[in-house]
Amino acid sequence: MGPIDPPARLLMGPGPITVDPRVLRAMSAQLVGQFDPWMTDLMTETSVLYRQVFRTANEQTFLVDGTSRAGIEAALVSLLEPGDRVLVPVFGRFGHLLTEIAERCGAEVHTIEVPWGEVFAPEVLEDAVRRVRPSLVAVVQGDTSTTMCQPLADLGRICRDQGALLYVDATASLGGNPFETDAWGVDVATAGLQKCLGGPSGSAPITLSPLAVEAIEARKHIEAGIREAADEHDEGRRRGTRIASNYLDLAQIMDYWGPRRLNHHTEASTMLYGARECARLLVEEGVDNAVARHARHGRAMLEGVRGLGLEVFGDTAHKMTNVVAVHIPDGVSGDAARAAMLDDFGIEIGTSFGPLHGKVWRIGTMGYNARKDAVLTTLAALEQVLRGFGAPVTAGGGVGAAREVYADA
Amino acid sequence: MGPIDPPARLLMGPGPITVDPRVLRAMSAQLVGQFDPWMTDLMTETSVLYRQVFRTANEQTFLVDGTSRAGIEAALVSLLEPGDRVLVPVFGRFGHLLTEIAERCGAEVHTIEVPWGEVFAPEVLEDAVRRVRPSLVAVVQGDTSTTMCQPLADLGRICRDQGALLYVDATASLGGNPFETDAWGVDVATAGLQKCLGGPSGSAPITLSPLAVEAIEARKHIEAGIREAADEHDEGRRRGTRIASNYLDLAQIMDYWGPRRLNHHTEASTMLYGARECARLLVEEGVDNAVARHARHGRAMLEGVRGLGLEVFGDTAHKMTNVVAVHIPDGVSGDAARAAMLDDFGIEIGTSFGPLHGKVWRIGTMGYNARKDAVLTTLAALEQVLRGFGAPVTAGGGVGAAREVYADA
Repeated sequence: MGPIDPPARLLMGPGPITVDPRVLRAMSAQLVGQFDPWMTDLMTETSVLYRQVFRTANEQTFLVDGTSRAGIEAALVSLLEPGDRVLVPVFGRFGHLLTEIAERCGAEVHTIEVPWGEVFAPEVLEDAVRRVRPSLVAVVQGDTSTTMCQPLADLGRICRDQGALLYVDATASLGGNPFETDAWGVDVATAGLQKCLGGPSGSAPITLSPLAVEAIEARKHIEAGIREAADEHDEGRRRGTRIASNYLDLAQIMDYWGPRRLNHHTEASTMLYGARECARLLVEEGVDNAVARHARHGRAMLEGVRGLGLEVFGDTAHKMTNVVAVHIPDGVSGDAARAAMLDDFGIEIGTSFGPLHGKVWRIGTMGYNARKDAVLTTLAALEQVLRGFGAPVTAGGGVGAAREVYADA
Repeated sequence: MGPIDPPARLLMGPGPITVDPRVLRAMSAQLVGQFDPWMTDLMTETSVLYRQVFRTANEQTFLVDGTSRAGIEAALVSLLEPGDRVLVPVFGRFGHLLTEIAERCGAEVHTIEVPWGEVFAPEVLEDAVRRVRPSLVAVVQGDTSTTMCQPLADLGRICRDQGALLYVDATASLGGNPFETDAWGVDVATAGLQKCLGGPSGSAPITLSPLAVEAIEARKHIEAGIREAADEHDEGRRRGTRIASNYLDLAQIMDYWGPRRLNHHTEASTMLYGARECARLLVEEGVDNAVARHARHGRAMLEGVRGLGLEVFGDTAHKMTNVVAVHIPDGVSGDAARAAMLDDFGIEIGTSFGPLHGKVWRIGTMGYNARKDAVLTTLAALEQVLRGFGAPVTAGGGVGAAREVYADA
């Protein structure tokens, strides 16, 4: 077997997407030691950068060493004790994932659901919080399975009024859709690099409010192998149930990232380099500018697929900026058309899960690929592929409609 | 803040160590889609390569997306049900870690201990297994905290005779010390890239015997968001307790790596590229040759520090090839001398944990840094630093003794 030599691909699915070459360059840097002053400074800088990305003053802002799913589980397993009541508003696949993880934490999980393609009205959320009286509300912001973006501006206040903490999975939305940790009163938010942040999967940025930190610190337990005399005292004062995971124990990870620098896992330095560069580029561009960029290219793709004569799935007033779901035309095999896009043009578009499987494609415009050339190339190729499958398409309609969006912007 | 620009470092601690530049190059490759045929083929190739690294025919050989600690926890949380009896032979810090993780899984954990710097005789292990009658024996092969390498050739047979499964944490030893999954009857082994494999932390290779797979499959639970009709039937047949973690649920990860390619986490592609390259380079060198290389350079470092007049810690007959613990000479501040090595020579050597903290340094020779120039440079610098701190050292004694080892080899 030879060295890694990937084929050229333009990744226009719901993520992961093509990585910004600057992030790959950052990740090719050589390692320094785990507790080298340069390394611990770099970790501190990474916290500072992600505070700007998450729009928060939260001291506890750092990385979980795993994919975005590891960040979700770290949040839930560290916040939830067995028997805790949780409310999960489900509007797509990733709401089911939050439910499933919360169940494995032993929580009493209550769900509310809307059909795929819709979001919850704030009053529906408020009624549910009042009725269930959960200790935690766990919700996805942007669920790529449906392309919907749940409005969250009121939910923090609702949760605070009812004494619940608020966790938001912002994996697919952060950096490409407005997200305000502090202004919205979000207690814990997690993300990944592989969507709007333009990096590869494998590192999960997280931020925790002081209230969330307090709840987690009460469950802290330091490993016997590195515990010191003062810690033995703290062991006796623990109030909560010990966190069920060691690897995803946020109390321990905070001690590792904090001034005490207490050994936990061995930091995944190369992923740290990548995560820092993703945030650095976003902050350099300006978070508002990055969101506007995603909105512009997302709108071009939306109008482009409509211009081809395709129908868009779901409530477009609440669509994420960075992905659109398109009904597969009658008589076209969704998988065969995706294969033609890949084989003939090197372009990947996404399939779907659950109730949408076989019915829609999902086309992303995010991170490094929220670019005009990526949008127009995808639309031009899609027109050719659809024509090849005998679907009725408007010649030049996709690229033309997208160009109009760019002309207006 | 500018782009990543690390200082030049020679990492001669107990790991992580300097990454092989070929691994960094592999990790700079661009991404392809998660279910692109090229990507799934690459995952299959990675399994094939790690079978050779682990010396096994186990079909289930793949990567856990996290650091080596994630691999350990994935193994234990997937194998252990609450109330299961586990035996952990503890001979250093990482035995305590296995104990701690097993406790968080709700297992009934029994430990046996030897003083740091020693290993267990096979008959001591056999007696303990007969007495405790565990369902699982969990043991570290090479514990960097003490530099000891536990002999394991008999333990698989002992476990099988008593109906226990055997889990081995080979993080710090694999690729630099003999390890035989099949010949030794190991049921589950996990590792990391950041020691003898010459990569960065962040991916955990794992292999599972058919018996271990059977035990884990009995606890399989597929997420509601992606479950199909046939799975609903399987849900009804589940015998074991649902695995407490979703992210580290090996049943789900096997479905993701297996022919079904069932969506779980989003593969950390860049770490996969690195993990594949680490294994490819090791297989290209030959696993036996790599172990012999670690033995040669480890012996040169051992004789080198002795040649400087330093005393080596622990039972050197059972030392790992790839790390040596050296008593800090009287009157020398261990931390100040380490800082001088770093500041003046750019060389990192390791501090220690627990009972050895402040008493020994740990010096590694592993992965990319199991090289003559790395060994001799470290010894030359250490001589200068020790002299600067007023410690008695034999001028030229370190480099000279190491050169003799190389002359013999």
